[in-house]
Order: sequence, then structure tokens, then C-alpha cells
Amino acid sequence: MWGIIATWVMAKDGIDKASKLLNDNSSCKEALLAAIKDVEDNPDFWSVGYGGLPNEDKEVECDAAYMNGDNLKVGCVGAIKDIANPIEVAEHLSHEDLNNFLTGDGAKKYAIEKGFMERDMLTQKAINAYEEKKKFSKPYRGHDTIGCIALDSNNSMCAGTSTSGLFMKRKGRIGDSPLIGSGYYADSLIGGAAATGLGEDIMKKCMSYEIVRLMSEGYSPQKACEKALLSYSTKLKGDCSLIAMNNKGEFGAATNIDDFSFVVATQNLKPTIYRVSRITDHSELYLPDEKWLSDLLAHI
Amino acid sequence: MWGIIATWVMAKDGIDKASKLLNDNSSCKEALLAAIKDVEDNPDFWSVGYGGLPNEDKEVECDAAYMNGDNLKVGCVGAIKDIANPIEVAEHLSHEDLNNFLTGDGAKKYAIEKGFMERDMLTQKAINAYEEKKKFSKPYRGHDTIGCIALDSNNSMCAGTSTSGLFMKRKGRIGDSPLIGSGYYADSLIGGAAATGLGEDIMKKCMSYEIVRLMSEGYSPQKACEKALLSYSTKLKGDCSLIAMNNKGEFGAATNIDDFSFVVATQNLKPTIYRVSRITDHSELYLPDEKWLSDLLAHI
Repeated sequence: MWGIIATWVMAKDGIDKASKLLNDNSSCKEALLAAIKDVEDNPDFWSVGYGGLPNEDKEVECDAAYMNGDNLKVGCVGAIKDIANPIEVAEHLSHEDLNNFLTGDGAKKYAIEKGFMERDMLTQKAINAYEEKKKFSKPYRGHDTIGCIALDSNNSMCAGTSTSGLFMKRKGRIGDSPLIGSGYYADSLIGGAAATGLGEDIMKKCMSYEIVRLMSEGYSPQKACEKALLSYSTKLKGDCSLIAMNNKGEFGAATNIDDFSFVVATQNLKPTIYRVSRITDHSELYLPDEKWLSDLLAHI
Repeated sequence: MWGIIATWVMAKDGIDKASKLLNDNSSCKEALLAAIKDVEDNPDFWSVGYGGLPNEDKEVECDAAYMNGDNLKVGCVGAIKDIANPIEVAEHLSHEDLNNFLTGDGAKKYAIEKGFMERDMLTQKAINAYEEKKKFSKPYRGHDTIGCIALDSNNSMCAGTSTSGLFMKRKGRIGDSPLIGSGYYADSLIGGAAATGLGEDIMKKCMSYEIVRLMSEGYSPQKACEKALLSYSTKLKGDCSLIAMNNKGEFGAATNIDDFSFVVATQNLKPTIYRVSRITDHSELYLPDEKWLSDLLAHI
């Protein structure tokens, strides 16, 4: 069984590509990198990679991470600037024995040393959007991080994230996305999870670690997401949306916002967009109608 | 009941000060800051704050974090340069609504903006030690982070860490110390925990979150540390030493190295140094003898 799941509708094209790779027996790593790079490279997505909204100093600073579920090896970059694909740097860092989590100029220095492509990540469109948003918006509290879990037909799993973070964030700010156990987690013997939302709150409950831990106790991905979110909600209010997949390709999601979406594909399910709504103490997954999809595409 | 516990013998003077504060009804925050600042300010400690060993670029980059156990609010700095007391910046950040985790130049910018003292953290002694160590040492894998948990007589708890990180670390590298749930955790309703060791491994199992979670299930601090370490050891080999205190002032510790030490004081126990040794599947706490203490002091 193979499977892949990622946060938000923006992941749809990437999951299309990744599911073809998995179906052709590619590794979960190759599939996950393809899915996340597709989102990073798209200048129409304001919250990830190229074309992401800048920080208070008008710099695009990106966070990304990669976790190998076979051996728990991890690579993380925080507040990295002017590197085209932060997820690739994170994956590369996961092979190092030490210094797996690099930030700021140190992360960029490493990326250049290893030959990763430099790119001015700030687009004119993002500058325009920034100026427009600044007029009427509070610092952006939304959460359009791409978080992704992949399972390949060799039963290996991995997790990854990529984001340009909070709108108008402070220079050097990092959220939950590069933090292992908070924004993502994967253990090939159990499953994986990822979170998107207000990083400052998500990290306080190690949400992704907790979901995987609950799956190790026998909870389904859906129940594990719901149970972790219930515990979160006793103390925290920041936006929090969760996805999970276990090592059988079963998946689940939960959210404390009105309208969360994710994309999933498995050996038995073609790439499919789901919407998720919070309903008192559980989350309901359902297929979007045509109007919702066309409105969304028009908005992008 | 009040109590305070911190990693390594270097915390002894700080715990002396902090325990007096707690005995005079000071808050856990005041006590913890006093304990950690004492270690940060001491140029004889090569692994924390002023006089810390520099990174590969000969810069002293520090990590620190503060967590308020009453509301889970957290402040974290990663790879911050030339600020005298990283723990104070972290505590200040814990009062912000957003942008609680700042790294590199962004963290320094925030610290200066808020009026924190700048200081050239690199001492001649540290330069000499660096040059000497470079000749015969592999990048330092030891772990002399200060991690501290405090409980005050109002039943509030907090956790904090401070470190200059791995010897010869890469520029921008951060370890487990600023990562919530990995290097530290505190929940006043349960207890707190802190870790010291190879950050790159400790973060893979969210060790401090896991210990507090186990205490919430009813485990004593000692059993919680041992159980978390057993789970860690199934997959990971990096040095890992753990301390915990619950909200009754009971404490525990575990380690996978030969000789770990910590300092603890409570309403009923004057500041006391303990040594910890790994013995198959559990850890044994015992009081050091005079020779061990005098050898250690001679070494510092």
C-alpha cells in the first residue's frame, strides 16, 4: 500500500505528481519532495516558498523540515532566505550526523555550500499583496503551511513541511513547521502527522508527536487527530488543523477552524480534495462541491 | 511546597541563590532566572552564555528558552549573538502574543530593541580552549546545557534552558534547548522536565514533553524519566540526560551516560548535588563523595 496526504488545496497539483511517482514504486522521499517543491515553486501561493509574503523587513524567510520515518533522522531550516527550495535543503540536512537544524544566514551558507539554487524569493505580486494587506489586516494569523506525509510500497514513511510563515512576522521568527514533533512527525512503524495553524500555539502541545503516539496506542488516524485536538483545545485557541496517515495508508484530519482542506491519494484512492469542519468535539470530512472548488480556484 | 532542579554541578551557585528566593516567597520565574543567569554570567563555564565556546565561525551563538507552566506561554531564542543573558530575552518573548521564537539577527534585533544588554560573549579563555580542543577533539558531543525547573509556593511552575551549544557547531545551528517539548517543558498542573545531551537526537523523541505526559498519567518524576529514556534508547544513541520535578516538589533523573549530575533544592532539602549513573534499564541517584567534588572543582 502507498499513500500521500498534504494540507490545503494548494497541494493538489503536487499530490497528482507525487501519486504517479508512488504508483511507479518511487520512494516516499521522492514523492514528498515532488509534492512540496510543486507548492514552493508556485508564485501564486503566498504562504510557501517563491512568492511567499515577506517579514516585517520585507524579506521572505522560509521554514522547512524533512523527517525520515525509518530512522527518525531529521533536517530542518528556519528563517532561510533566497534559496529556491527550502525542503531540499532540509532533506539534505537529514543526512548529516550533527547540525541538522540550521537557521538564518547559517542555513543559507550551508545551502550555497551544498550547491542548492539561489533565488530572489520576493515577487512583485507578493510586494503588492503585502502593501495591500498591511492597510487593513492585522498580522496574518492564517496558516497555509504545506505539511505532507508519504508512505511508499516498501512501507517506508516520511514527513515534510514548508512555509514562509506568518504575515508580517518579525525577522528571524520561526513557527512550528521546522520543529520536530510540532509541525510534523513520522515513524515508519506507526505513521505520520502534520499540523498547520498558529505555530506559536501548536508547538506548545507537540501536536504531531502526540498524534503519532496516539496511533501507536491503537487509535485510527482520525481518532488520533481528534483526541490530540481536544487536549489542545483545553488550553489553547490558536488555529490548528491536523492531518495524519498510518502505515496502512489510512488517514484522518481534524481542525478547530470553520474550513480546512487537504488532499490525499492512496493505492486505492485517486488524488482527492477533502474539506474538514469542526463539529463540537469531532471533525467531519466531506467532499467539496463544484461551486466551492471553482470559487477557490478563481480566488487563487 | 517549593522546589528547583537544574542540570549539572555548574548550577550549584545559581540554585543556592534561587532557593533563597523561593524560600522568601519569590515567584518560580524570579528564581529560575536567577539560577540560569548565574551560569550564563560565569566565564568559567564553556557551554553556556558568556565565555561559551564559539561555533565554526568563531562566534558564540546561544540558545535559550523560558516556559510559563501556568499558561504554557513560551519564549525561545536560537543562535543569538552578543546579548549578555539569552534567558532574559527568552522570558521577555514569552509575553508576546506572536513571534515567540526568534533566531539569529532577528533575535538580536529584538533584544536590542527591548533594551537588553549587549556583550561580546567570546572570551580569550574560550578562544584558547577552542584552539586547544580543535587540535585533538572531534566536534564536541558532550552536553552541558543548563536546564532548570522551578516550583514556587503558589504552585506555579516554569522551565528554562540556556546553552552555547555543540563545540564547533555550524553557524545558525540550534539544538533541543530552545525547542519546546524537547529541551524543556512545564505544566503547573503536572510538573516540568528538561533534557541535556545531543540535541539532534533528543528532539527526535520530544523528551521533555513525554516525561511531563508520563507524570500526568501518574508516574513519579523518577519513573517518568526512566520510561522516557527507555523508549528513546530503542532507536537513539546520542547522549541524553533528563531531570524532572512534579508539582509536589518530587524529583527524578535518568541518563544514558556514565556520569551525569544535577542540583536540587526544595522546602525540605537544602541545595544538594546528585550524581546519576545508568544501570541497565534504570538510573541510580547518589550523593558524590568529597574526592569527586574536589576533583571537579579543580577541573573548573
